[in-house]
Amino acid sequence: MRRVRFRDPAGTVRQGEWTDDGIIFGSDTYEPTDEAIDVLAPTEPSKIVCVGLNYADHAAESNMEIPDRPLLFLKPPNTLSSHGDTVTLPAGKERVDFEAEIAIVIGEQCRDVDAEDAMSVVEGFTCLNDISNRDDQEIEQNWIRGKAFDNSAPVGPVVATPDEVPEDASVELRVNGETRQSSSRSEWIFSLPELIEEITTYMTLEPGDLISTGTPAGVGPLEDGDTVELEVEGVGTLEHSVREA
Amino acid sequence: MRRVRFRDPAGTVRQGEWTDDGIIFGSDTYEPTDEAIDVLAPTEPSKIVCVGLNYADHAAESNMEIPDRPLLFLKPPNTLSSHGDTVTLPAGKERVDFEAEIAIVIGEQCRDVDAEDAMSVVEGFTCLNDISNRDDQEIEQNWIRGKAFDNSAPVGPVVATPDEVPEDASVELRVNGETRQSSSRSEWIFSLPELIEEITTYMTLEPGDLISTGTPAGVGPLEDGDTVELEVEGVGTLEHSVREA
Repeated sequence: MRRVRFRDPAGTVRQGEWTDDGIIFGSDTYEPTDEAIDVLAPTEPSKIVCVGLNYADHAAESNMEIPDRPLLFLKPPNTLSSHGDTVTLPAGKERVDFEAEIAIVIGEQCRDVDAEDAMSVVEGFTCLNDISNRDDQEIEQNWIRGKAFDNSAPVGPVVATPDEVPEDASVELRVNGETRQSSSRSEWIFSLPELIEEITTYMTLEPGDLISTGTPAGVGPLEDGDTVELEVEGVGTLEHSVREA
Repeated sequence: MRRVRFRDPAGTVRQGEWTDDGIIFGSDTYEPTDEAIDVLAPTEPSKIVCVGLNYADHAAESNMEIPDRPLLFLKPPNTLSSHGDTVTLPAGKERVDFEAEIAIVIGEQCRDVDAEDAMSVVEGFTCLNDISNRDDQEIEQNWIRGKAFDNSAPVGPVVATPDEVPEDASVELRVNGETRQSSSRSEWIFSLPELIEEITTYMTLEPGDLISTGTPAGVGPLEDGDTVELEVEGVGTLEHSVREA
Protein backbone atom coordinates (compact mmCIF):
# COMPACT_ATOMS: atom_id res chain seq x y z
CA MET A 1 0.00 0.00 0.00
CA ARG A 2 1.23 3.48 -0.88
CA ARG A 3 -0.19 6.27 1.28
CA VAL A 4 -0.18 9.83 -0.02
CA ARG A 5 -1.00 13.09 1.77
CA PHE A 6 -2.54 15.70 -0.49
CA ARG A 7 -4.63 18.83 -0.50
CA ASP A 8 -7.91 18.16 -2.31
CA PRO A 9 -9.65 20.68 -4.63
CA ALA A 10 -11.46 22.17 -1.60
CA GLY A 11 -8.11 22.75 0.13
CA THR A 12 -8.58 20.02 2.74
CA VAL A 13 -5.65 17.77 3.62
CA ARG A 14 -6.45 14.11 2.88
CA GLN A 15 -4.60 10.82 3.21
CA GLY A 16 -5.32 8.74 0.13
CA GLU A 17 -3.97 5.65 -1.58
CA TRP A 18 -1.66 6.07 -4.58
CA THR A 19 -2.63 3.38 -7.10
CA ASP A 20 -2.10 2.70 -10.78
CA ASP A 21 -5.54 4.24 -11.37
CA GLY A 22 -4.73 7.47 -9.50
CA ILE A 23 -4.99 8.82 -5.96
CA ILE A 24 -8.07 7.37 -4.25
CA PHE A 25 -9.80 8.98 -1.27
CA GLY A 26 -13.33 7.83 -0.44
CA SER A 27 -15.23 7.67 -3.72
CA ASP A 28 -12.98 10.24 -5.43
CA THR A 29 -10.05 9.48 -7.72
CA TYR A 30 -7.52 12.12 -8.78
CA GLU A 31 -4.66 12.08 -11.25
CA PRO A 32 -1.43 12.87 -9.35
CA THR A 33 -0.74 15.57 -11.95
CA ASP A 34 -4.18 17.20 -11.55
CA GLU A 35 -3.52 20.90 -10.92
CA ALA A 36 -6.53 21.07 -8.60
CA ILE A 37 -4.68 18.96 -6.01
CA ASP A 38 -1.32 19.34 -4.27
CA VAL A 39 0.74 16.36 -3.22
CA LEU A 40 2.21 17.16 0.23
CA ALA A 41 5.13 15.68 2.13
CA PRO A 42 3.78 12.27 3.19
CA THR A 43 4.39 12.91 6.91
CA GLU A 44 4.90 15.89 9.22
CA PRO A 45 8.05 14.79 11.05
CA SER A 46 9.17 16.40 14.29
CA LYS A 47 12.70 15.66 13.06
CA ILE A 48 14.57 13.94 10.24
CA VAL A 49 17.53 11.94 11.54
CA CYS A 50 20.02 11.59 8.69
CA VAL A 51 22.82 9.08 8.29
CA GLY A 52 26.07 10.10 6.60
CA LEU A 53 28.47 7.79 4.79
CA ASN A 54 26.23 4.71 4.71
CA TYR A 55 27.47 3.55 1.28
CA ALA A 56 31.15 2.66 0.83
CA ASP A 57 31.34 4.21 -2.66
CA HIS A 58 30.09 7.61 -1.45
CA ALA A 59 32.50 7.59 1.51
CA ALA A 60 35.30 7.00 -1.00
CA GLU A 61 34.24 9.85 -3.32
CA SER A 62 34.00 12.15 -0.28
CA ASN A 63 37.52 11.16 0.89
CA MET A 64 36.08 10.09 4.22
CA GLU A 65 36.59 6.90 6.18
CA ILE A 66 33.72 4.54 6.84
CA PRO A 67 32.71 5.29 10.43
CA ASP A 68 32.59 2.57 13.08
CA ARG A 69 29.13 3.71 14.09
CA PRO A 70 26.57 5.71 12.11
CA LEU A 71 27.46 9.35 11.43
CA LEU A 72 24.25 11.22 12.35
CA PHE A 73 22.94 14.69 11.63
CA LEU A 74 19.56 16.43 11.68
CA LYS A 75 17.18 18.12 9.29
CA PRO A 76 14.47 20.01 11.20
CA PRO A 77 10.91 20.53 9.89
CA ASN A 78 11.81 23.72 7.99
CA THR A 79 13.73 21.54 5.55
CA LEU A 80 10.63 19.79 4.18
CA SER A 81 9.58 20.06 0.57
CA SER A 82 7.23 17.90 -1.48
CA HIS A 83 6.68 16.09 -4.75
CA GLY A 84 6.12 18.62 -7.52
CA ASP A 85 7.65 21.55 -5.64
CA THR A 86 10.31 23.99 -6.75
CA VAL A 87 13.20 24.23 -4.29
CA THR A 88 14.98 27.59 -4.05
CA LEU A 89 18.70 26.98 -3.58
CA PRO A 90 20.50 29.03 -0.90
CA ALA A 91 21.83 32.27 -2.36
CA GLY A 92 25.42 32.86 -3.37
CA LYS A 93 26.81 29.33 -2.94
CA GLU A 94 29.31 27.70 -5.30
CA ARG A 95 28.06 24.17 -4.92
CA VAL A 96 24.73 22.75 -3.76
CA ASP A 97 24.44 18.99 -4.37
CA PHE A 98 21.68 16.41 -4.74
CA GLU A 99 21.89 13.27 -2.58
CA ALA A 100 19.42 10.46 -3.34
CA GLU A 101 18.32 8.63 -0.20
CA ILE A 102 15.85 5.99 0.95
CA ALA A 103 14.04 7.26 4.06
CA ILE A 104 12.49 5.10 6.76
CA VAL A 105 9.12 6.34 8.07
CA ILE A 106 8.50 5.72 11.78
CA GLY A 107 5.04 4.45 12.70
CA GLU A 108 4.90 4.80 16.47
CA GLN A 109 6.56 6.60 19.37
CA CYS A 110 9.55 4.53 20.40
CA ARG A 111 12.77 4.53 22.44
CA ASP A 112 15.45 1.90 23.15
CA VAL A 113 14.28 -0.37 20.34
CA ASP A 114 16.25 -3.63 20.03
CA ALA A 115 17.51 -4.35 16.54
CA GLU A 116 15.44 -7.52 16.37
CA ASP A 117 12.23 -5.53 17.00
CA ALA A 118 13.08 -2.65 14.67
CA MET A 119 10.58 -3.48 11.91
CA SER A 120 7.73 -3.21 14.42
CA VAL A 121 8.22 0.59 14.61
CA VAL A 122 8.51 1.10 10.84
CA GLU A 123 5.49 2.31 8.87
CA GLY A 124 7.30 2.17 5.55
CA PHE A 125 9.69 3.87 3.16
CA THR A 126 9.84 7.01 1.05
CA CYS A 127 12.30 8.97 -1.15
CA LEU A 128 14.32 11.89 0.23
CA ASN A 129 16.74 14.22 -1.55
CA ASP A 130 19.26 15.36 1.09
CA ILE A 131 20.19 18.62 -0.65
CA SER A 132 23.56 19.78 0.66
CA ASN A 133 25.24 23.19 0.58
CA ARG A 134 28.90 22.16 0.38
CA ASP A 135 30.30 25.71 0.75
CA ASP A 136 29.19 25.77 4.37
CA GLN A 137 29.12 22.05 5.18
CA GLU A 138 32.85 21.82 4.58
CA ILE A 139 33.73 24.58 7.03
CA GLU A 140 31.30 24.11 9.93
CA GLN A 141 31.44 21.74 12.92
CA ASN A 142 27.74 20.89 12.80
CA TRP A 143 26.11 20.76 9.37
CA ILE A 144 23.46 23.43 9.90
CA ARG A 145 23.97 25.97 7.12
CA GLY A 146 25.11 22.98 5.05
CA LYS A 147 22.17 20.66 5.61
CA ALA A 148 19.35 22.31 7.60
CA PHE A 149 18.37 25.18 5.29
CA ASP A 150 14.78 25.64 4.14
CA ASN A 151 13.43 23.08 1.67
CA SER A 152 16.62 21.05 1.65
CA ALA A 153 14.63 17.82 2.10
CA PRO A 154 12.19 17.12 -0.75
CA VAL A 155 10.39 13.96 0.36
CA GLY A 156 7.71 11.66 -1.04
CA PRO A 157 5.59 11.15 -2.97
CA VAL A 158 4.23 8.32 -0.77
CA VAL A 159 4.93 6.10 2.20
CA ALA A 160 5.16 2.56 0.84
CA THR A 161 4.60 -0.20 3.39
CA PRO A 162 7.56 -2.55 3.95
CA ASP A 163 5.98 -5.39 1.92
CA GLU A 164 6.23 -3.16 -1.19
CA VAL A 165 9.97 -2.47 -0.87
CA PRO A 166 12.41 -5.38 -1.41
CA GLU A 167 15.48 -5.84 0.79
CA ASP A 168 17.62 -4.98 -2.24
CA ALA A 169 15.42 -2.11 -3.47
CA SER A 170 17.14 0.05 -6.06
CA VAL A 171 17.61 3.80 -5.58
CA GLU A 172 18.26 6.00 -8.60
CA LEU A 173 18.49 9.74 -9.15
CA ARG A 174 18.16 11.49 -12.50
CA VAL A 175 18.82 15.15 -13.28
CA ASN A 176 17.03 16.38 -16.39
CA GLY A 177 16.49 12.74 -17.36
CA GLU A 178 20.13 11.67 -17.04
CA THR A 179 20.96 9.01 -14.45
CA ARG A 180 23.46 10.32 -11.89
CA GLN A 181 23.14 7.92 -8.96
CA SER A 182 22.20 4.25 -9.05
CA SER A 183 22.55 1.83 -6.17
CA SER A 184 20.59 -0.42 -3.84
CA ARG A 185 19.48 -0.78 -0.26
CA SER A 186 21.62 -3.91 -0.11
CA GLU A 187 24.72 -1.65 -0.20
CA TRP A 188 23.99 -0.01 3.16
CA ILE A 189 26.86 -0.23 5.62
CA PHE A 190 24.53 -0.01 8.63
CA SER A 191 21.30 -1.98 8.32
CA LEU A 192 17.83 -0.71 9.17
CA PRO A 193 17.77 -2.58 12.54
CA GLU A 194 21.23 -1.26 13.45
CA LEU A 195 20.21 2.33 12.63
CA ILE A 196 16.98 2.19 14.62
CA GLU A 197 18.65 0.59 17.64
CA GLU A 198 21.48 3.15 17.65
CA ILE A 199 19.29 6.23 17.16
CA THR A 200 16.67 5.21 19.74
CA THR A 201 19.40 4.64 22.33
CA TYR A 202 19.58 8.44 22.48
CA MET A 203 16.36 9.84 21.03
CA THR A 204 12.66 9.10 21.18
CA LEU A 205 11.24 8.84 17.68
CA GLU A 206 7.72 10.01 16.94
CA PRO A 207 5.15 8.77 14.39
CA GLY A 208 6.01 10.38 11.06
CA ASP A 209 9.66 10.97 11.94
CA LEU A 210 12.06 10.05 9.17
CA ILE A 211 15.44 8.34 9.17
CA SER A 212 17.25 9.14 5.95
CA THR A 213 19.68 6.35 5.27
CA GLY A 214 22.55 7.96 3.38
CA THR A 215 23.43 8.42 -0.26
CA PRO A 216 25.42 6.31 -2.74
CA ALA A 217 28.18 7.58 -5.05
CA GLY A 218 27.47 10.05 -7.83
CA VAL A 219 26.44 13.18 -5.93
CA GLY A 220 26.74 16.35 -7.95
CA PRO A 221 25.68 19.97 -8.21
CA LEU A 222 22.20 21.32 -8.85
CA GLU A 223 21.64 24.34 -11.07
CA ASP A 224 18.86 26.77 -11.81
CA GLY A 225 16.08 25.06 -13.74
CA ASP A 226 17.15 21.47 -13.09
CA THR A 227 14.49 18.79 -12.71
CA VAL A 228 15.23 15.96 -10.29
CA GLU A 229 13.64 12.50 -10.30
CA LEU A 230 14.47 10.25 -7.35
CA GLU A 231 13.15 6.71 -7.74
CA VAL A 232 13.13 4.05 -5.04
CA GLU A 233 11.95 0.60 -6.07
CA GLY A 234 8.59 -0.12 -4.52
CA VAL A 235 8.00 3.50 -3.51
CA GLY A 236 7.88 5.33 -6.85
CA THR A 237 9.40 8.55 -8.11
CA LEU A 238 9.77 11.85 -6.26
CA GLU A 239 10.01 14.74 -8.73
CA HIS A 240 10.99 18.31 -7.99
CA SER A 241 12.72 21.21 -9.68
CA VAL A 242 15.21 23.76 -8.40
CA ARG A 243 15.84 27.43 -8.99
CA GLU A 244 18.46 29.88 -7.85
CA ALA A 245 17.50 32.51 -5.29
CA MET B 1 4.78 39.96 31.63
CA ARG B 2 5.78 36.36 32.32
CA ARG B 3 3.73 33.75 30.45
CA VAL B 4 3.62 30.18 31.75
CA ARG B 5 2.19 27.04 30.17
CA PHE B 6 0.82 24.58 32.67
CA ARG B 7 -1.53 21.66 33.08
CA ASP B 8 -4.37 22.63 35.42
CA PRO B 9 -5.92 20.28 38.01
CA ALA B 10 -8.36 19.01 35.35
CA GLY B 11 -5.42 18.10 33.06
CA THR B 12 -6.08 20.89 30.57
CA VAL B 13 -3.14 22.86 29.16
CA ARG B 14 -3.45 26.57 30.00
CA GLN B 15 -1.39 29.67 29.35
CA GLY B 16 -1.33 31.78 32.50
CA GLU B 17 0.58 34.71 33.91
CA TRP B 18 3.33 34.02 36.46
CA THR B 19 3.08 36.77 39.10
CA ASP B 20 4.32 37.36 42.63
CA ASP B 21 0.89 36.14 43.80
CA GLY B 22 1.03 32.89 41.86
CA ILE B 23 0.03 31.61 38.43
CA ILE B 24 -3.13 33.35 37.27
CA PHE B 25 -5.51 31.97 34.64
CA GLY B 26 -8.98 33.46 34.43
CA SER B 27 -10.28 33.77 37.98
CA ASP B 28 -8.01 30.97 39.28
CA THR B 29 -4.68 31.43 41.05
CA TYR B 30 -2.28 28.55 41.67
CA GLU B 31 0.94 28.27 43.61
CA PRO B 32 3.71 27.18 41.17
CA THR B 33 4.57 24.40 43.66
CA ASP B 34 0.97 23.13 43.85
CA GLU B 35 1.15 19.40 43.14
CA ALA B 36 -2.22 19.55 41.38
CA ILE B 37 -0.66 21.50 38.50
CA ASP B 38 2.31 20.80 36.22
CA VAL B 39 4.44 23.58 34.80
CA LEU B 40 5.20 22.66 31.16
CA ALA B 41 7.87 23.86 28.78
CA PRO B 42 6.72 27.41 27.94
CA THR B 43 6.60 26.73 24.18
CA GLU B 44 6.40 23.74 21.85
CA PRO B 45 9.29 24.55 19.50
CA SER B 46 9.66 22.85 16.12
CA LYS B 47 13.39 23.24 16.73
CA ILE B 48 15.90 24.74 19.15
CA VAL B 49 18.76 26.45 17.35
CA CYS B 50 21.74 26.53 19.70
CA VAL B 51 24.79 28.75 19.59
CA GLY B 52 28.16 27.39 20.70
CA LEU B 53 31.06 29.44 22.04
CA ASN B 54 29.19 32.72 22.47
CA TYR B 55 31.13 33.72 25.63
CA ALA B 56 34.90 34.24 25.42
CA ASP B 57 35.54 32.66 28.83
CA HIS B 58 33.77 29.40 27.90
CA ALA B 59 35.60 29.20 24.56
CA ALA B 60 38.86 29.49 26.54
CA GLU B 61 37.92 26.75 29.04
CA SER B 62 36.94 24.50 26.11
CA ASN B 63 40.26 25.12 24.33
CA MET B 64 38.39 26.37 21.29
CA GLU B 65 38.86 29.51 19.23
CA ILE B 66 36.18 32.15 19.07
CA PRO B 67 34.48 31.55 15.72
CA ASP B 68 34.17 34.30 13.11
CA ARG B 69 30.49 33.51 12.72
CA PRO B 70 28.14 31.76 15.15
CA LEU B 71 28.76 28.06 15.69
CA LEU B 72 25.28 26.52 15.36
CA PHE B 73 23.78 23.19 16.33
CA LEU B 74 20.29 21.80 16.88
CA LYS B 75 18.21 20.32 19.67
CA PRO B 76 15.03 18.74 18.28
CA PRO B 77 11.71 18.54 20.18
CA ASN B 78 12.62 15.25 21.93
CA THR B 79 15.15 17.22 24.00
CA LEU B 80 12.51 19.26 25.85
CA SER B 81 12.08 19.06 29.60
CA SER B 82 10.34 21.42 32.00
CA HIS B 83 10.54 23.25 35.28
CA GLY B 84 10.25 20.76 38.14
CA ASP B 85 11.12 17.70 36.05
CA THR B 86 13.68 15.00 36.70
CA VAL B 87 16.07 14.51 33.78
CA THR B 88 17.44 11.00 33.27
CA LEU B 89 21.07 11.23 32.15
CA PRO B 90 22.16 9.04 29.22
CA ALA B 91 23.40 5.67 30.46
CA GLY B 92 27.04 4.74 30.83
CA LYS B 93 28.67 8.11 30.14
CA GLU B 94 31.68 9.46 32.00
CA ARG B 95 30.74 13.11 31.83
CA VAL B 96 27.41 14.85 31.24
CA ASP B 97 27.59 18.61 31.86
CA PHE B 98 25.22 21.45 32.69
CA GLU B 99 25.36 24.58 30.50
CA ALA B 100 23.35 27.61 31.66
CA GLU B 101 21.90 29.56 28.74
CA ILE B 102 19.54 32.43 28.01
CA ALA B 103 17.11 31.39 25.28
CA ILE B 104 15.33 33.71 22.87
CA VAL B 105 11.68 32.81 22.18
CA ILE B 106 10.49 33.53 18.63
CA GLY B 107 7.07 35.15 18.30
CA GLU B 108 6.24 34.87 14.62
CA GLN B 109 7.17 32.92 11.50
CA CYS B 110 10.12 34.69 9.94
CA ARG B 111 12.93 34.39 7.37
CA ASP B 112 15.67 36.75 6.16
CA VAL B 113 15.25 39.10 9.12
CA ASP B 114 17.53 42.15 9.07
CA ALA B 115 19.46 42.71 12.29
CA GLU B 116 17.78 46.07 12.78
CA ASP B 117 14.33 44.40 12.73
CA ALA B 118 15.29 41.43 14.91
CA MET B 119 13.41 42.48 18.05
CA SER B 120 10.14 42.51 16.09
CA VAL B 121 10.21 38.69 15.84
CA VAL B 122 11.11 38.12 19.51
CA GLU B 123 8.38 37.20 21.98
CA GLY B 124 10.75 37.14 24.93
CA PHE B 125 13.33 35.18 26.89
CA THR B 126 13.55 32.02 28.96
CA CYS B 127 16.14 29.82 30.72
CA LEU B 128 17.59 26.72 29.03
CA ASN B 129 20.04 24.15 30.37
CA ASP B 130 21.94 22.78 27.35
CA ILE B 131 22.83 19.44 28.94
CA SER B 132 25.79 17.97 27.07
CA ASN B 133 27.11 14.41 26.89
CA ARG B 134 30.84 15.07 26.44
CA ASP B 135 31.79 11.41 25.87
CA ASP B 136 30.07 11.48 22.50
CA GLN B 137 30.23 15.18 21.68
CA GLU B 138 34.02 15.06 21.61
CA ILE B 139 34.17 12.25 19.05
CA GLU B 140 31.33 12.96 16.62
CA GLN B 141 31.18 15.35 13.65
CA ASN B 142 27.66 16.56 14.40
CA TRP B 143 26.68 16.81 18.06
CA ILE B 144 23.72 14.41 18.01
CA ARG B 145 24.45 11.82 20.69
CA GLY B 146 26.23 14.66 22.51
CA LYS B 147 23.47 17.28 22.44
CA ALA B 148 20.21 15.92 20.99
CA PHE B 149 19.37 13.15 23.46
CA ASP B 150 16.01 13.02 25.22
CA ASN B 151 15.37 15.69 27.88
CA SER B 152 18.70 17.40 27.32
CA ALA B 153 16.99 20.82 27.19
CA PRO B 154 15.16 21.71 30.40
CA VAL B 155 13.51 25.06 29.60
CA GLY B 156 11.35 27.59 31.43
CA PRO B 157 9.67 28.28 33.69
CA VAL B 158 8.23 31.25 31.73
CA VAL B 159 8.60 33.41 28.68
CA ALA B 160 9.41 36.90 29.94
CA THR B 161 8.71 39.74 27.52
CA PRO B 162 11.74 41.80 26.43
CA ASP B 163 10.82 44.74 28.67
CA GLU B 164 11.38 42.47 31.71
CA VAL B 165 14.92 41.43 30.74
CA PRO B 166 17.70 44.06 30.82
CA GLU B 167 20.38 44.24 28.11
CA ASP B 168 22.91 43.15 30.74
CA ALA B 169 20.67 40.51 32.36
CA SER B 170 22.60 38.17 34.63
CA VAL B 171 22.62 34.40 34.13
CA GLU B 172 23.57 32.11 36.98
CA LEU B 173 23.52 28.36 37.54
CA ARG B 174 23.60 26.62 40.90
CA VAL B 175 24.02 22.91 41.59
CA ASN B 176 22.68 21.83 44.97
CA GLY B 177 22.69 25.49 45.98
CA GLU B 178 26.30 26.19 45.01
CA THR B 179 26.93 28.79 42.31
CA ARG B 180 28.81 27.26 39.35
CA GLN B 181 28.22 29.72 36.50
CA SER B 182 27.67 33.46 36.74
CA SER B 183 27.76 35.86 33.80
CA SER B 184 25.64 38.32 31.83
CA ARG B 185 23.97 38.82 28.49
CA SER B 186 26.35 41.71 27.94
CA GLU B 187 29.19 39.16 27.52
CA TRP B 188 27.73 37.62 24.35
CA ILE B 189 30.14 37.58 21.43
CA PHE B 190 27.31 37.62 18.88
CA SER B 191 24.39 39.90 19.73
CA LEU B 192 20.72 38.98 19.50
CA PRO B 193 20.26 40.90 16.19
CA GLU B 194 23.34 39.23 14.70
CA LEU B 195 22.14 35.77 15.71
CA ILE B 196 18.65 36.24 14.31
CA GLU B 197 19.91 37.69 11.02
CA GLU B 198 22.43 34.87 10.55
CA ILE B 199 20.06 32.01 11.44
CA THR B 200 17.16 33.31 9.35
CA THR B 201 19.44 33.63 6.33
CA TYR B 202 19.21 29.83 6.18
CA MET B 203 16.17 28.75 8.18
CA THR B 204 12.59 29.84 8.68
CA LEU B 205 11.84 30.21 12.37
CA GLU B 206 8.39 29.38 13.72
CA PRO B 207 6.45 30.85 16.66
CA GLY B 208 7.72 29.13 19.80
CA ASP B 209 11.08 28.18 18.30
CA LEU B 210 14.01 28.84 20.61
CA ILE B 211 17.48 30.23 20.00
CA SER B 212 19.74 29.21 22.87
CA THR B 213 22.51 31.74 23.09
CA GLY B 214 25.49 29.85 24.46
CA THR B 215 26.95 29.27 27.90
CA PRO B 216 29.55 31.15 29.98
CA ALA B 217 32.52 29.58 31.78
CA GLY B 218 32.06 27.18 34.66
CA VAL B 219 30.41 24.20 33.00
CA GLY B 220 30.74 21.00 34.97
CA PRO B 221 29.39 17.49 35.45
CA LEU B 222 25.96 16.48 36.70
CA GLU B 223 25.49 13.50 38.99
CA ASP B 224 22.66 11.35 40.22
CA GLY B 225 20.44 13.32 42.60
CA ASP B 226 21.73 16.78 41.74
CA THR B 227 19.32 19.70 41.80
CA VAL B 228 19.91 22.48 39.27
CA GLU B 229 18.70 26.07 39.51
CA LEU B 230 19.21 28.27 36.47
CA GLU B 231 18.34 31.92 37.04
CA VAL B 232 18.11 34.60 34.37
CA GLU B 233 17.48 38.13 35.56
CA GLY B 234 13.97 39.19 34.60
CA VAL B 235 12.88 35.64 33.74
CA GLY B 236 13.16 33.81 37.06
CA THR B 237 14.55 30.44 38.07
CA LEU B 238 14.27 27.14 36.22
CA GLU B 239 14.64 24.23 38.62
CA HIS B 240 15.10 20.58 37.76
CA SER B 241 16.82 17.52 39.14
CA VAL B 242 18.79 14.74 37.47
CA ARG B 243 19.16 11.01 37.97
CA GLU B 244 21.28 8.34 36.40
CA ALA B 245 19.63 5.84 34.08
